[in-house]
Amino acid sequence: MKVLVVGANGQIGKQLVGLLKGSSEYTVRALLRTEQQVKDFEQLGVEAILGSLEGTVEQLTEAAKDCEAVVFTAGSGGQTGYDKTLLIDLDGAVKMIEAAESAGVKRFIMVSAIQAHNRNHWNEQIKPYYAAKHYADRILVQSKLTYTIIRPGGLLNEPGTGKVKIAENLERGFIPREDVAKTIVAVIKEKSTYNKSFDLVSGETPITEAVQTI
Amino acid sequence: MKVLVVGANGQIGKQLVGLLKGSSEYTVRALLRTEQQVKDFEQLGVEAILGSLEGTVEQLTEAAKDCEAVVFTAGSGGQTGYDKTLLIDLDGAVKMIEAAESAGVKRFIMVSAIQAHNRNHWNEQIKPYYAAKHYADRILVQSKLTYTIIRPGGLLNEPGTGKVKIAENLERGFIPREDVAKTIVAVIKEKSTYNKSFDLVSGETPITEAVQTI
Repeated sequence: MKVLVVGANGQIGKQLVGLLKGSSEYTVRALLRTEQQVKDFEQLGVEAILGSLEGTVEQLTEAAKDCEAVVFTAGSGGQTGYDKTLLIDLDGAVKMIEAAESAGVKRFIMVSAIQAHNRNHWNEQIKPYYAAKHYADRILVQSKLTYTIIRPGGLLNEPGTGKVKIAENLERGFIPREDVAKTIVAVIKEKSTYNKSFDLVSGETPITEAVQTI
Repeated sequence: MKVLVVGANGQIGKQLVGLLKGSSEYTVRALLRTEQQVKDFEQLGVEAILGSLEGTVEQLTEAAKDCEAVVFTAGSGGQTGYDKTLLIDLDGAVKMIEAAESAGVKRFIMVSAIQAHNRNHWNEQIKPYYAAKHYADRILVQSKLTYTIIRPGGLLNEPGTGKVKIAENLERGFIPREDVAKTIVAVIKEKSTYNKSFDLVSGETPITEAVQTI
């Protein structure tokens, strides 16, 4: 199964590409924003394609062709303004959803943010970001795609533990990016996560077990 | 029929409140952000209620109680950043849509922007604003409300002509705010505009005639 990773050069994206590449069940295509990134990924033996979430749905459709799943783990990041939050985290995500539909990709995994579905629990410090994620998720739910929306808590760079806590609603918590990447891989073919959304933080349950009991 | 005007203190909102107040078919309730605005409107004999689009859906539901229609003509305006665009023009609008549903209001008129439905025609200079309007409109269309989405061209302060051009897609153009306000009044009970969206600029057709032929 070929998986398109959108946001492949991001901190979760890179780990995800590595995991997929190392797996016998998947092949991976990385969507990247610059020629240099494409070169870098190709040198590591990863199929890479140039494309931007600020481009057209048609261009993104082309990027998604022949893939069986899309993982959206892109984000405009904290260095740009809320203009980019609107254009990347919201509109870019929805364009990717539309592109997946056009390309005939059925499976879509979205990396969102803890409690993004619950307006009353949005992080006050980055509330506009939460609004963007919220509406991208809502539009995915309303699409025809078989979605899974993963809403991780605060992201850490420390090594993963391989153990998580998953539920529709969790108190604020943290999780290493490595465990988010592993959770993404674990849900791709896991039918119990189809058309489900969940919060994700570090916990006591092995990832593969946790995703089976959603 | 009582109409809740959201954004009543805005440039279109004020004219709309005046028109509704002067009509025998409608009564009006103005939703306002400050105590002073509430006082000012009450002194003019207008029912006014304090509330913010940054408040909760519950508060907005309370504001919409006993109304038969909601007109959304609010906007964060050009003086604030894109953080407010996300929180007011997008999330505030959707909260008002949800509030209308909760309050049992069936009719919802949204003031959007010309070509907001068409990503390729978004005004490049204010593209993030267009993204916010686009998604608010999409969520209204997917709601259970009987909507009309009015997408006016560039807004002018000059007096209205009473004549407009209406179509699903129009080239960029302009229209006095007074004519937008008059068009809003003309669509409220006009069944041919139910669950329709249209671009609106100045033209040759009298407003009441133009809205009947959508």
